[in-house]
Amino acid sequence: MKQTGFIYGGDYNPEQWLDTPEILKQDIEYMKAAHINEVTLGVFSWSALEPQEGVYEFKWLRNIIDNLYENGISVILSTPSGARPKWLADSYPEVLRVNADRTNNLFGGRHNHCYTSPVYREAIYKIDRKLSEQFGNHPAVTIWHISNELGGDCHCPLCQKAFRQWIEKKYGTIEALNKAWNTAFWSHTYPSFEQVESPSPRGEQELHGLNLDWKRFVTDQTADFVSWEKKAIWEGGSELPVTINMMYDYKGLNYHKFKDLIDFASWDSYPTWHKEEEKETALDTALQHDFMRSILKKPFLLMESCPTATNWQSVSKLKRPGMLGAASLQAVAHGADSVQYFQIRQSRGASEKFHGAVIDHYGGMDTRVFEEVTGVGSQLLELSEIAGSTVRARAAILHDCESRWAMEDSQGPRNKDLHYMDVLKKIFHGLRKLGLDVDILDMEEELKGYDLVFAPMLYMFRCDIETKIRNFVAKGGTFVMTYWSGIVNENDLCHLGGTPHQLMEVFGLRSTELDALYEGERNSGKSTGAFFEKEKRYECRNFCNLIRTDSAETLLSFETDFYEGYPAFARNSYEKGKAYYICADFEESFYDDLCLKLVEEKGLLKVPFDIPEGVAVTSRENPLKKFLFIQNFRKDKFLVNLRNTEWKLLMGDDTGVIGQYGTAVYWTVNQEERA
Amino acid sequence: MKQTGFIYGGDYNPEQWLDTPEILKQDIEYMKAAHINEVTLGVFSWSALEPQEGVYEFKWLRNIIDNLYENGISVILSTPSGARPKWLADSYPEVLRVNADRTNNLFGGRHNHCYTSPVYREAIYKIDRKLSEQFGNHPAVTIWHISNELGGDCHCPLCQKAFRQWIEKKYGTIEALNKAWNTAFWSHTYPSFEQVESPSPRGEQELHGLNLDWKRFVTDQTADFVSWEKKAIWEGGSELPVTINMMYDYKGLNYHKFKDLIDFASWDSYPTWHKEEEKETALDTALQHDFMRSILKKPFLLMESCPTATNWQSVSKLKRPGMLGAASLQAVAHGADSVQYFQIRQSRGASEKFHGAVIDHYGGMDTRVFEEVTGVGSQLLELSEIAGSTVRARAAILHDCESRWAMEDSQGPRNKDLHYMDVLKKIFHGLRKLGLDVDILDMEEELKGYDLVFAPMLYMFRCDIETKIRNFVAKGGTFVMTYWSGIVNENDLCHLGGTPHQLMEVFGLRSTELDALYEGERNSGKSTGAFFEKEKRYECRNFCNLIRTDSAETLLSFETDFYEGYPAFARNSYEKGKAYYICADFEESFYDDLCLKLVEEKGLLKVPFDIPEGVAVTSRENPLKKFLFIQNFRKDKFLVNLRNTEWKLLMGDDTGVIGQYGTAVYWTVNQEERA
Amino acid sequence: MKQTGFIYGGDYNPEQWLDTPEILKQDIEYMKAAHINEVTLGVFSWSALEPQEGVYEFKWLRNIIDNLYENGISVILSTPSGARPKWLADSYPEVLRVNADRTNNLFGGRHNHCYTSPVYREAIYKIDRKLSEQFGNHPAVTIWHISNELGGDCHCPLCQKAFRQWIEKKYGTIEALNKAWNTAFWSHTYPSFEQVESPSPRGEQELHGLNLDWKRFVTDQTADFVSWEKKAIWEGGSELPVTINMMYDYKGLNYHKFKDLIDFASWDSYPTWHKEEEKETALDTALQHDFMRSILKKPFLLMESCPTATNWQSVSKLKRPGMLGAASLQAVAHGADSVQYFQIRQSRGASEKFHGAVIDHYGGMDTRVFEEVTGVGSQLLELSEIAGSTVRARAAILHDCESRWAMEDSQGPRNKDLHYMDVLKKIFHGLRKLGLDVDILDMEEELKGYDLVFAPMLYMFRCDIETKIRNFVAKGGTFVMTYWSGIVNENDLCHLGGTPHQLMEVFGLRSTELDALYEGERNSGKSTGAFFEKEKRYECRNFCNLIRTDSAETLLSFETDFYEGYPAFARNSYEKGKAYYICADFEESFYDDLCLKLVEEKGLLKVPFDIPEGVAVTSRENPLKKFLFIQNFRKDKFLVNLRNTEWKLLMGDDTGVIGQYGTAVYWTVNQEERA
Repeated sequence: MKQTGFIYGGDYNPEQWLDTPEILKQDIEYMKAAHINEVTLGVFSWSALEPQEGVYEFKWLRNIIDNLYENGISVILSTPSGARPKWLADSYPEVLRVNADRTNNLFGGRHNHCYTSPVYREAIYKIDRKLSEQFGNHPAVTIWHISNELGGDCHCPLCQKAFRQWIEKKYGTIEALNKAWNTAFWSHTYPSFEQVESPSPRGEQELHGLNLDWKRFVTDQTADFVSWEKKAIWEGGSELPVTINMMYDYKGLNYHKFKDLIDFASWDSYPTWHKEEEKETALDTALQHDFMRSILKKPFLLMESCPTATNWQSVSKLKRPGMLGAASLQAVAHGADSVQYFQIRQSRGASEKFHGAVIDHYGGMDTRVFEEVTGVGSQLLELSEIAGSTVRARAAILHDCESRWAMEDSQGPRNKDLHYMDVLKKIFHGLRKLGLDVDILDMEEELKGYDLVFAPMLYMFRCDIETKIRNFVAKGGTFVMTYWSGIVNENDLCHLGGTPHQLMEVFGLRSTELDALYEGERNSGKSTGAFFEKEKRYECRNFCNLIRTDSAETLLSFETDFYEGYPAFARNSYEKGKAYYICADFEESFYDDLCLKLVEEKGLLKVPFDIPEGVAVTSRENPLKKFLFIQNFRKDKFLVNLRNTEWKLLMGDDTGVIGQYGTAVYWTVNQEERA
Repeated sequence: MKQTGFIYGGDYNPEQWLDTPEILKQDIEYMKAAHINEVTLGVFSWSALEPQEGVYEFKWLRNIIDNLYENGISVILSTPSGARPKWLADSYPEVLRVNADRTNNLFGGRHNHCYTSPVYREAIYKIDRKLSEQFGNHPAVTIWHISNELGGDCHCPLCQKAFRQWIEKKYGTIEALNKAWNTAFWSHTYPSFEQVESPSPRGEQELHGLNLDWKRFVTDQTADFVSWEKKAIWEGGSELPVTINMMYDYKGLNYHKFKDLIDFASWDSYPTWHKEEEKETALDTALQHDFMRSILKKPFLLMESCPTATNWQSVSKLKRPGMLGAASLQAVAHGADSVQYFQIRQSRGASEKFHGAVIDHYGGMDTRVFEEVTGVGSQLLELSEIAGSTVRARAAILHDCESRWAMEDSQGPRNKDLHYMDVLKKIFHGLRKLGLDVDILDMEEELKGYDLVFAPMLYMFRCDIETKIRNFVAKGGTFVMTYWSGIVNENDLCHLGGTPHQLMEVFGLRSTELDALYEGERNSGKSTGAFFEKEKRYECRNFCNLIRTDSAETLLSFETDFYEGYPAFARNSYEKGKAYYICADFEESFYDDLCLKLVEEKGLLKVPFDIPEGVAVTSRENPLKKFLFIQNFRKDKFLVNLRNTEWKLLMGDDTGVIGQYGTAVYWTVNQEERA
Repeated sequence: MKQTGFIYGGDYNPEQWLDTPEILKQDIEYMKAAHINEVTLGVFSWSALEPQEGVYEFKWLRNIIDNLYENGISVILSTPSGARPKWLADSYPEVLRVNADRTNNLFGGRHNHCYTSPVYREAIYKIDRKLSEQFGNHPAVTIWHISNELGGDCHCPLCQKAFRQWIEKKYGTIEALNKAWNTAFWSHTYPSFEQVESPSPRGEQELHGLNLDWKRFVTDQTADFVSWEKKAIWEGGSELPVTINMMYDYKGLNYHKFKDLIDFASWDSYPTWHKEEEKETALDTALQHDFMRSILKKPFLLMESCPTATNWQSVSKLKRPGMLGAASLQAVAHGADSVQYFQIRQSRGASEKFHGAVIDHYGGMDTRVFEEVTGVGSQLLELSEIAGSTVRARAAILHDCESRWAMEDSQGPRNKDLHYMDVLKKIFHGLRKLGLDVDILDMEEELKGYDLVFAPMLYMFRCDIETKIRNFVAKGGTFVMTYWSGIVNENDLCHLGGTPHQLMEVFGLRSTELDALYEGERNSGKSTGAFFEKEKRYECRNFCNLIRTDSAETLLSFETDFYEGYPAFARNSYEKGKAYYICADFEESFYDDLCLKLVEEKGLLKVPFDIPEGVAVTSRENPLKKFLFIQNFRKDKFLVNLRNTEWKLLMGDDTGVIGQYGTAVYWTVNQEERA
């Protein structure tokens, strides 16, 4: 079933309603009324598909899929490994997880299984292969959705063994491991690989090299499990594309390691709209959309979102009228090719019974939520031609999962709070205010192709990022880095001889000391006039990095404490490019001013109007056209005037007025692609 | 030993002082000086009564009881199951509890035993029966006190088995259970009853139906244990009445399930007087007294209270002069037939050694506390004729333990805090300000006989409350219900087709959406003039319920947010009565104004003077007389003038002046009873 | 290697750098440049010294020590028991600890071994004896450092058995134990010693007598372990002096119980300079220095301190220029004979890789920190003659570890917070402001020799402190005690018959009730004019003690609450001395005024100038000279004028100016000693 335009649908759990066929029938009618063209089936259906070991019941699912197909609704089919049946846990307790404290889990919850267990792998292989055989070539089925919100770890003996093999493969000799982890400290030298155990609150938990490699192993083992499920599907005869649904700022896995395993990135987005000002929530969500899109640098799927309030946040607020449209189109604006909900019909019982859904317990079509869902469906139809188009960013921010793991685990200058994401968001905000599309990269990526790259707190240097940065600057790029960068190598061993490691020449300085500030403490940087206008000052907090400049020029200098007068922001010209070094955790306006100056300097400013706070401008393009999304997350109306420009209205008000939560979309011919 | 008048005494632990007979002798003298006529013996005496398995030592207790009897002091005798001896735990480890996380408890603490264990039941049977044989017909002994502050649960294999039998008995088939708990969600379908395990943080903890049934099972198993102890006493030859001592707002057990097992309700009251303003503490305590009294709708016992400061609160404040009297007489005013303390003589060591007592470590009679205790004794003698009289409430509030369990466990619109008890207290305050006596009912009770019934957040509908409410209104009653009512059935499955379930016609409306407000967010309801005076407005927070009215009339409407203008408070006339629906968590003055209007409308206002904040008016009655208690919990004096009324002074100042913490009691002939 | 002057050095871990001999060589050069004359070796070196069971490698250590010796650097040699090798834990799991919740630890962390285990004792005996044989008479080695920061407990079966033997030895009969612990409460009577188990969150945790004896046992068992290590060293042939390094306000051990085992007290000082005002931090640190010095009443060692920021505090701030000198000399001013750092060279990896060090990852000598370290080295050389001199305090404060254990474990009037150390610090501050040297004593000490002794919240009376206090006052001493004193005996059993136990005559009063105040509540004491000037008032909080005075004179009386007019501060003359009783937790100015009056009265004021807040004056003396340290912890300069006095400048500015963080040292001839 070839789909054109956007995927519009969401999770659908008919197995909860098999004894009420009238409801199943009504569901189809409702979906069609709301322009829904897709449902995701099979998430958590294992018990229904295999009620006893080896006893399969596919008929109900076949009926559902056939019926959907007949009604023009496609299916994303999920493997059921997100939660296992009770009988499996009872017959083979080894499939349940062992926690870091070495307690065995009982049956319950969702991801509560060992990824290593051969028994579990065998069981999932069988059901996945059967599913593939049964439905993998059904014309309704378009994509495989592997498991659900993968996450967590297991410390069972099987995982311990797998971990030991993993580190042996990595290090070769135990001496190399001892050196890499500096186990001589506290006399923790390992006599052999067999002696290594995973981190535990009851045992070793401050050996950072061990912690880091454990996290890497967990990612690799999870990825291996996904490969295993893909193998089962493949061997069942289906060659459809594959996705996994990822989560907001999830630190349990390095999602970048899955990029070779999936055909689409997809994620589940549950912002707490109306908790903060909408413009804040929108910015935060935009960052996640960009992170997800950057994994494969192609359109992603919004696999889950909520039609109204969730039920698991501390306060679950109704989405105000229009918010659903704004949130849905925001995903599209950032590169999504779908808008999907959890879930189509609200469950009657158990933990998510009060989670918002397209069809609620009342069950009528005459609800505010159903009307809004229908409205989004119409809008997506209007925008059909945009599906499949891409985002081309010329600015990027380095966000490396492994570096962040190491930095946040490490005991250092501020165990209380590093404010890492805050700094990253300030940079993102500075760029987005100017309407720039932004990629979020990890250190495995290449920097070429970008004009402007930021690296906030790039604590660890790995993948020879030193050389990539050096070359990037040498060839004319502008690179901006902050304090607490280039401190350790890939095993969290400190670099000797000065930092930022191997980039002191590029930045024209050496970092000498890092002062941590208590809550409430402030310092500030005052402009020398060489970059910002003279007398300009920016407040800073949390960190003040003392540096010794060599060839670098001081652009701001500290105003108080014993390092008054020391450089607080410096620039160095290196071959054809420029390298900026930020010494302190400055306030937002610093990043706003910095981004404006750099973006102007690099000629990246493209939007032909001023963008006020709370208005978001984003672009997508295909070989023929460029699309401009303008979204208004403010209270006040926003008037955009593009009459005498190349941009033509695709969706929105002719007058150029965009109301609260409103979206306008413009298009123009893609000259660049043609050229 | 037939007692007339009030029981006055408390917990007495002579087994801690057997080697100092001069102290035991002094105790009796002190009790008599303080007008104490009762002591509670045997709480935690198992080790002293049965120091080794099968070796009993009753002589010391016989001496104590004989001596008390000779001095005119009666005995409430406790079974010792509140804490078991070390030898029992060491010989039979199965008697110790297993926690929800499946760790086994070691010996220690108080309620640390399995209610299911046949070994524990056998052991307690033996000692209880012996106690009954030895003392169950002693003329000093008047009441049996089963165990002590029952509570907690056990997850051992024996309890798991008993739980499986319990659910099998309830559901009959595993299919019925799976449907009731909606286990299809997250694929948690149970293949058989044998596979069900109690909730656990290491396993299943979000299957609300399981959680709810586990709580019900724990109550039933605890009640069964009480029956078992009663059986031992009965078979030992004693037929004295029985009580259990309950606790403040305790959510571990559904106390209503014990009503057929006990002859008296009794409870342990430890308010933190002087932490809040006394009027707040008094209101809160009044609610608990009324809750306890409503269980059997007859006089209850104040089994424990503290003569001065406790030692286990975070700050243990001295009771100011007069406070002890006010607190003690408040219990009496709400229907208590006793005032009892923990404890008569302060322990020298272990965890409660600094808990206030009638006789302290110093040991003299010349203490402020002893003088106050003596004063209360005198007052109770003055009021003797009131003992045995009852409270007749015409207003009631529905507070259902099972509904609250389900609501508070459920993940819903505000996991942070539902403010359930706050709403209940605002209603209670509105009624009590007018001097109304109030019953606190669970859903198993009948509503007939009341004029006015409130149902705050009656999330679950069970016991066919729909019909009871419908009939109550149809026959002329006034019923007031709030948002978040009638949402689920007795297994926490959501009602389909609209809420409040089966009462949409009675209330003339349907609830469509429930908005949750963040801390700090506010809305308000503005009067339409149809009920409150025009322009009147009330602030609300936490919840705003969006409704669609049918026949209901809008009395207040929301003032802000997208539901500005929607009904915030509505009234429907249904047959002979009226049904009010409150859509938001309104401020206290809303409930004050509402109660006043409804009480006036129903003609329930009886007290012939205005009651200011901080003055509490309560009544009791017997077939001959009615009694009016007026208590002053304010700083300022209160002057009551009942000279030209039917009321005559029984206790208090002739002038009508009631000082801080003072109590006046009036009486009149009970015309209604005679009529 | 006989050292004169101060020890200057710190922890050095060459085993982390054995594969980089150039770094080891550089280390020596750097040490010499910084005037470092000592390093502490062997802390956490077990894996390097005994990489497999019974396989020893001492050569590397010999090379290091020889090389240090040749360069004039002495060695404090540590036994390696602070952390055991992985092979030991793997071969003999019994060496790992069992937690209070009875879970077994895995390998990891530092102090994670059973002090009782014969296997562990045997293993440590072997390595310690070998170390002693190899290095115990090496001319470079001067002191043995046993283990590292001893602490924690173990609940394994071996420890349970040892504990049972300990209590049997203490109590003789189980009846005596039951009486001492008042186990009749809650029916917890023990049938025999075999039935006793250590406290556990899964079992017994509120039996205060058990908790207290367990803490005592843990101290005794730890001390026994130290004895065992000393035995190994001794039997290896070395008779060098011994120390253990203690920790800031550590409550896990009663350090006073180690005084017969060690030749020097030493401790690890990590104040959070610049978090509070420096004068606050200085006062707090001064108290710890005095506590440590008072254990042996002779010079102690500052075994660890940080050259700049640590890495394990929630915020790790750089030490501002000069702060290192001020902190280092403060230790000397309070009686230290060393200044030592953790560590000489910063580790490359693992948990303390970012802990400040003399030589950092950069590795150059041209760092701010290295320059400051070198400056401190110079100052210590200037002050050489002071090393070995002592402090002679005429005022003392009673701080008894066992009393504090009992008081803080006990459930009493304020479980929230007793503010014990706050009160102790207010007294300490009052005395230190006047330049008085202060000893911090436990109850085993004698009081004679002091003029003025304070006892804040001396909850427990043990070691016949009643008699000591009585005699002290009788013979002319001034004794000041607060509320919550003399409440229990050494087993935490309450004293009967009135408190303060056996001292009611000495203080001329009896304590009747103790009121606890909520946060925010205040009372005040108003002067009667008999001591402080009339109309003077002091605010109080937390506690108000109601007393009945007999012969005592009221000096302050309460101003509010029902005890308005009751005594709040009282004085009694008893034979030749005076006993003061403080009834409430008064503000700091009360203690300032009180100390001033008492110090003047006793003629203890010796410093010939006024000491402003933030300036600290301390003295040391030897038979020939007295030394006066004046340290400025304020922002402003301080000018001291001692020109026309007996005092001569030893270090500092001729002008008498002492800048921020500056120190001046003066000397004079010790007349007293000569007389």
